[in-house]
Amino acid sequence: MKHHPHKILDCTVRDGGLVNNWDFSVQFVKDMYYGLSDAGVEYMEVGYKNSAKLLKGADSGPWRFLNESFLKEVITNKTGTKLSALVDIGRVDENDILPREQSLLDLIRVACYIKDVDKGLELVQKFNSMGYETTLNIMALSHVMDNELTEAFEEIRQSPVDVVYIVDSYGSMDFKDIDYLVAKFQRLLPEKELGLHMHNNMQLAFANTIAGAAKGVTFLDSSVYGMGRAAGNCPTELLVSYLKNPRYDVRPVLDIIERHMIAMREKWEWGYIIPYMIAGVLDEHPRVAMALRASADKDKYVDFYDRLTSVETAPTSKD
Amino acid sequence: MKHHPHKILDCTVRDGGLVNNWDFSVQFVKDMYYGLSDAGVEYMEVGYKNSAKLLKGADSGPWRFLNESFLKEVITNKTGTKLSALVDIGRVDENDILPREQSLLDLIRVACYIKDVDKGLELVQKFNSMGYETTLNIMALSHVMDNELTEAFEEIRQSPVDVVYIVDSYGSMDFKDIDYLVAKFQRLLPEKELGLHMHNNMQLAFANTIAGAAKGVTFLDSSVYGMGRAAGNCPTELLVSYLKNPRYDVRPVLDIIERHMIAMREKWEWGYIIPYMIAGVLDEHPRVAMALRASADKDKYVDFYDRLTSVETAPTSKD
Repeated sequence: MKHHPHKILDCTVRDGGLVNNWDFSVQFVKDMYYGLSDAGVEYMEVGYKNSAKLLKGADSGPWRFLNESFLKEVITNKTGTKLSALVDIGRVDENDILPREQSLLDLIRVACYIKDVDKGLELVQKFNSMGYETTLNIMALSHVMDNELTEAFEEIRQSPVDVVYIVDSYGSMDFKDIDYLVAKFQRLLPEKELGLHMHNNMQLAFANTIAGAAKGVTFLDSSVYGMGRAAGNCPTELLVSYLKNPRYDVRPVLDIIERHMIAMREKWEWGYIIPYMIAGVLDEHPRVAMALRASADKDKYVDFYDRLTSVETAPTSKD
Repeated sequence: MKHHPHKILDCTVRDGGLVNNWDFSVQFVKDMYYGLSDAGVEYMEVGYKNSAKLLKGADSGPWRFLNESFLKEVITNKTGTKLSALVDIGRVDENDILPREQSLLDLIRVACYIKDVDKGLELVQKFNSMGYETTLNIMALSHVMDNELTEAFEEIRQSPVDVVYIVDSYGSMDFKDIDYLVAKFQRLLPEKELGLHMHNNMQLAFANTIAGAAKGVTFLDSSVYGMGRAAGNCPTELLVSYLKNPRYDVRPVLDIIERHMIAMREKWEWGYIIPYMIAGVLDEHPRVAMALRASADKDKYVDFYDRLTSVETAPTSKD
């Protein structure tokens, strides 16, 4: 592998929070931060910076609606590992965001679907002017028409956004899709760094991430033990082990897994589970599979497959 | 993907038997065979054809020392799905093997390390003369020097063997290794079909298999729900879903998983488990990790990592 300046962005607390409603202890988040720091991981995404006023979810853990003064009690000793937060279009109150010099956060990432790239870039502009590094994470790219993407790039090129992410929301992409999208993004956005956020429905999250890294993608999302919604993410322990960079050390990541993640995995579910595989293979949102896993029929795979592939009951049949 | 004539070879019963000492019921093996047949899978490996006289293991299930008359009671209705068995150098008694026209088996695969390729090819020659299709499965290729491999190819070229397998015994290979080996095998063995048998220590078994398939490898090993020794194999359900061939149908594979594999996975352990990941990353045989998983220290990942990476205790330190 060429020595691209890869950056690992661990999003265990943010994306993993979608699994357990952000029920992470302060000790866990501290151990995660200092462990990732020792492992040489460049960024840790510590939660969502959405507004509780704009979303139902009063019962969620504090990592869903990050509060700076709380965060400063948790991370008392900032290391070389930068902190990031994710915001969603329409769910963030810009007045909640401090100027960067008063914040523990270094990077704010804006997630949006292709139709909302304009709104996403408006937020990016704001956060950029407040001094933050920024990314635009374009979700569900497997459902986007090529001409629509080309059109969005025109706006993105004008924006101060630092990094543009390819997000495989449905875990349906293979190496050919990654090759195609990375080449297209590089050709049309030559001034931007690129990022990858992969899901593991088909056990391809790590493979796709290293394939993209070899092509020059620099921001690589991962989570410890793959913890993330539904099939989860590219595992941090694999990325840290694999990438050729003397700063990386897998040992502290193993320690986090040993101390925390094995017990968490017994309590909460994520990873390669057949209904998520089926959703990935069919290139569909995992929400139907998540509903199945929360029901008594959670292991009725054949019925589930029949339901998703039947013409009579497919969502579009009544259109 | 180009329409190479891919063949899926499911080795759940053979390789999965290394997990549960071949404790598979007759009903399970029947369901597996007819399910794989309905799924369009071309080959099912139904066990080892090693000799009980040459191996300890009297307590193993019958799939370890396949007996033709027993097999004929199990598979009473042969479908289009061919049957294979694996033999190891020095563990097979050739007198146990019937001529193909009296056997249910179509294919005999010979597994060997590079140093035993001559012995492997001698067996291949015998089985070929008895009418069987044959493969030579070269194990542990990540530990083989390139010149040694080139030399072995001279013998292989003279042999009647139909298929030569690249076996990633330690689950340590990535797409660059697959690219390299497939290109080398194709260049030096242009008359042979190629096969891939991957392990999932780094969650790369499926990714490496489809990468090789895209380069023209035709024999693709897999197992249902990935069941196989230690980290397991490329999952059959992913391969059947992914490969573009109208004969494949994932539904019967989902049915096997639903009816059998979920309960089996609760009883026996295989798959992406951290000590197997560590062994894969370090390119080592999984036996030390398997011993750890059978001990009270099974989740002491950091100690295990320290042990495998420490100069003082590494196996070679006393040489």
